[in-house]
Amino acid sequence: MYARRLLSKPLLARRLVPQTTRVARLNVSRAALVRGYAQDVVRDPMTGELTSLPDIDPARLHVIRTSKPKVPPPAKTLVFGHTFTDHMLVIPWSQTTGWQAPQIRPYGPLSLEPSVTVLHYAQTLFEGMKAYRDENGKVTLFRPDMNMKRMNKSAARIALPTFDADALLDCIKTLIRLDAHWIPQEVGHSLYIRPTLIGTQRAIGVNPPNEALLFVICSPVGPYYPTGFKPVSLMATTEYIRAAPGGTGGYKLGANYAPGVVPQKEAAKLGYSQNLWLLGPEHYLTEVGTMNLFVALKKDDGSAELVTPPLDDVILPGVTRDSVLALARDHASGKNPIKGLPKSLTVSERPITMKEVKEKAQSGKVIEVFGTGTAAIICPVERIGYLGEDITIPTGEAGIGDIAKGLLGEIVGRQMGTIPSDWSVVVSE
Amino acid sequence: MYARRLLSKPLLARRLVPQTTRVARLNVSRAALVRGYAQDVVRDPMTGELTSLPDIDPARLHVIRTSKPKVPPPAKTLVFGHTFTDHMLVIPWSQTTGWQAPQIRPYGPLSLEPSVTVLHYAQTLFEGMKAYRDENGKVTLFRPDMNMKRMNKSAARIALPTFDADALLDCIKTLIRLDAHWIPQEVGHSLYIRPTLIGTQRAIGVNPPNEALLFVICSPVGPYYPTGFKPVSLMATTEYIRAAPGGTGGYKLGANYAPGVVPQKEAAKLGYSQNLWLLGPEHYLTEVGTMNLFVALKKDDGSAELVTPPLDDVILPGVTRDSVLALARDHASGKNPIKGLPKSLTVSERPITMKEVKEKAQSGKVIEVFGTGTAAIICPVERIGYLGEDITIPTGEAGIGDIAKGLLGEIVGRQMGTIPSDWSVVVSE
Repeated sequence: MYARRLLSKPLLARRLVPQTTRVARLNVSRAALVRGYAQDVVRDPMTGELTSLPDIDPARLHVIRTSKPKVPPPAKTLVFGHTFTDHMLVIPWSQTTGWQAPQIRPYGPLSLEPSVTVLHYAQTLFEGMKAYRDENGKVTLFRPDMNMKRMNKSAARIALPTFDADALLDCIKTLIRLDAHWIPQEVGHSLYIRPTLIGTQRAIGVNPPNEALLFVICSPVGPYYPTGFKPVSLMATTEYIRAAPGGTGGYKLGANYAPGVVPQKEAAKLGYSQNLWLLGPEHYLTEVGTMNLFVALKKDDGSAELVTPPLDDVILPGVTRDSVLALARDHASGKNPIKGLPKSLTVSERPITMKEVKEKAQSGKVIEVFGTGTAAIICPVERIGYLGEDITIPTGEAGIGDIAKGLLGEIVGRQMGTIPSDWSVVVSE
Repeated sequence: MYARRLLSKPLLARRLVPQTTRVARLNVSRAALVRGYAQDVVRDPMTGELTSLPDIDPARLHVIRTSKPKVPPPAKTLVFGHTFTDHMLVIPWSQTTGWQAPQIRPYGPLSLEPSVTVLHYAQTLFEGMKAYRDENGKVTLFRPDMNMKRMNKSAARIALPTFDADALLDCIKTLIRLDAHWIPQEVGHSLYIRPTLIGTQRAIGVNPPNEALLFVICSPVGPYYPTGFKPVSLMATTEYIRAAPGGTGGYKLGANYAPGVVPQKEAAKLGYSQNLWLLGPEHYLTEVGTMNLFVALKKDDGSAELVTPPLDDVILPGVTRDSVLALARDHASGKNPIKGLPKSLTVSERPITMKEVKEKAQSGKVIEVFGTGTAAIICPVERIGYLGEDITIPTGEAGIGDIAKGLLGEIVGRQMGTIPSDWSVVVSE
């Protein structure tokens, strides 16, 4: 583990998982237990009392439809995250009442006192997921259980309330069904879903907030590659970090994003599309912009290795990252061979340094480099600027290598329903 | 430099200061130039054009008084940050119009669309400063120029708009004068001022926001030590970090605070008041909770050394930290001897490890440890939990050591006007 050099042993020995699990279970209500959302009877660890505060309850969902529905703009005019649908989901929480009745209401401003903690201390976390419409009009989500699980882990990390993941997903599905006509019909388009959870205590102490607000907004989005693949260039950033061991890089918190804007501007000024985030004096590769990172290498025996940094508290557990790993492993084992991927393939979650990437690129042993994320799915890399030099990465004539293209096809097929998969979750038939 | 072990040389070689300075000057308007707020003619570095967007302009300040003034609650009922005064200052900014007219209006909720970037990406920063009322009724601020300067540096670090520091301070003074009757008359009480700047772009891309909102709210607060000094115990945290080199710990950003809440809860569960934040495998001491840290040591030659970690991107440049350093140096040089401080004193901004603190404590060479911040001013430490053991720190019978007490008296004297000083800035006579 490369983190060992940076960290004390106690940090490595202990992970947040046990605490997260316990906190998550604390907030499971009796109603959820009855519905089968949780197996165990949940008791307060301090008093032994049954936890009695209500969890999110889809049965209490109240829908207020807009009286002024908007006309969705033409798909070709869409800019990511600028257009929002007619409705939003809002679920308030307080320390004394637990999760209150979910409400779907017309999209519109929130009224927040200037003292609310999210505005001062970054008590915010979010998720990004997409709803797709297949050729038959069926609407689906891609592995939404992964987003809900991660959202609860993020909440526990910054002392925001956790919740019944299935119950929130139920409410989100209702919202998507209501605004399903906002999903553009055009190929490659989708509805981007943004669940957000903020601390809304009206007092400027740095504490677990006594009030919170969960809201979900939806934005129709166009394809990431409207005019064919466009590989990106990366600036390997040695002046700024995205995350460090003991920090919050492994959680989808707002706090991880604001600090990346200036480094991104600086990379752009130097002619690069994104930051390649490094770690430590060894310059371990961690992430790319807001994406996970994969490097495909030629091994000495002629076989190939697909490398991504291991999950720890500097790497976000991306849903696309997990999907790529699963697909690559099923290819490697022969369970589900994928066209374009090397026949003999090792899939590795291991540390990888800039030294290794540079040396292997120079000796022609870097096959491909790509980022993975909800927006682009797979994003090929053609160039890495590192300590004043450019490292060229092969991308092929089409602007995307065979491995990236093969994996992209497998994921898009499962998202759009052309490849049957339990990763695809039906929202409406 | 201890950072050297954790970091690549380019990070050490480059500091944000030059860029920050340039960005800050870019936003200085012609109006500000005329008023003498800036010395240089400011041109856009790209086009050579004079920058024409308006900066904050106190002459445009519009005051809307509340029609329902509240009665300030009894001073003894005050809880930090729960009570706010009748008015707040609000200054919107947009990329196209620059800083708009400042407005003082009745304290009340902000209307924010759910898409605004502060709610998703932690585009927020703040300051904390106090207004004091002296025995003659004069209202003063303590070194507010330091807060304004730091606020601009924070803004530049996360691509929020910078501003004319003197102009904002002018507007804040007007707000304080309007609500001056909220400053409790009781000794040790003050009005806590919270300037905040948030990104309010109504689109969920991770970019420099095209809209922002600066607001200032005020909260009457009681004394930190209502019933005599109370030294705190620290949990030296080896599992979590507050900041790391290349990150944002040296800036007063919201993003630095949410991640500290769970570690604080865990420290409290183990019986400690605050986290002592460490860095790297060497366990360098960095900060205490939300305060800077000082350690007073006996040297082998019988003299004393007052140590605080050097300013870099993991240490917040605290106003009280700077004041303590200045006072201690003036004592050491003989310019202004302070009662209680050792006659022979070296003042050091240098790295200090837990190993050193532990060894020196065991051999009776730790004189005192204390935190410094706007809230407590000086906060004595009596105990540090470290890797399962407790290190006892002397605090004396009064719960505060002579050095901490001497420095505290000097700062409080300058805040309350009993010691004349140019650190004290008059708001109203």
